Amino acid sequence: MRSVIAVYVENKFGVLTRVAGLFMRKGFNIDSLAVGETEDPQYSRMTITLRGEESAREQIIHQLKKLHNVKEVKLLSDGETVERELLLLKVRNLPKTRTEVMAATDVYRGKIIDYSTDSMVIEVTGEPLKIQAFIDVMQPIGIMEMGRTGTVALARGADVLQEK
Amino acid sequence: MRSVIAVYVENKFGVLTRVAGLFMRKGFNIDSLAVGETEDPQYSRMTITLRGEESAREQIIHQLKKLHNVKEVKLLSDGETVERELLLLKVRNLPKTRTEVMAATDVYRGKIIDYSTDSMVIEVTGEPLKIQAFIDVMQPIGIMEMGRTGTVALARGADVLQEK
Repeated sequence: MRSVIAVYVENKFGVLTRVAGLFMRKGFNIDSLAVGETEDPQYSRMTITLRGEESAREQIIHQLKKLHNVKEVKLLSDGETVERELLLLKVRNLPKTRTEVMAATDVYRGKIIDYSTDSMVIEVTGEPLKIQAFIDVMQPIGIMEMGRTGTVALARGADVLQEK
Repeated sequence: MRSVIAVYVENKFGVLTRVAGLFMRKGFNIDSLAVGETEDPQYSRMTITLRGEESAREQIIHQLKKLHNVKEVKLLSDGETVERELLLLKVRNLPKTRTEVMAATDVYRGKIIDYSTDSMVIEVTGEPLKIQAFIDVMQPIGIMEMGRTGTVALARGADVLQEK
């Protein structure tokens, strides 16, 4: 089962290591992790996606809450959450595939943000499944390299993770 | 000095903890971290942004290269790199500020991806400075919460981090 967990942490030394270490000790491999600043420079927000049993996941959420410098932990549920990811993908720029790359980029509402004789870099955003579908389209054309940000997610409506 | 480092790692147990632990031991606080899958399911790509002295940064790159399961490490330089970040931002939906929120979203080429009586969720992508500028515009209106993915970056042109 795939889960998305949002963690609100104090911007203190070592908190990332503590969180990563907990997942390691519990035997969870993290699929994606995004750590960014928040509106308050004292805090960061981590978004973690992982796969695993529900019972083990409940246990890890419980233990995350007890970690030093962790202020809030929330399991984000499908349907009640908006989830987005960003992909930068570098693909070969060849005469025979150029039209297909540009058509697919257009359909996925992506942008070509770098163009050279040999390569193009495309930016695409969307839900993780859309990102994966775009990658699948580019695979036979020749992906040179790519970087995914990992998922960020917010609850729909007025709910917030951390009350001010 | 702000630096962006790309790290290509084997998708093995504990590699995130090892990388995070190295930064902690060296006294670097990570500003943002994005970890996502690559075109090859055996590997993940981490993008790390941090601030610090050039000499200390060279040292940490040297030590990253020696870590178990780390295949490639590269310092990405300004100008030769395309850099993007994604922001989800939830703002109050009030009659007196609604027009301003929608105008700013339009100017920043963002999208409103959730709309309720009390709140809106906006998606914006761009270089980190653009993301910060949008946050600064929303701050006085009332940010309820936000999530940033952290930066991902690829070299311009045909250079790649990991040769196939």
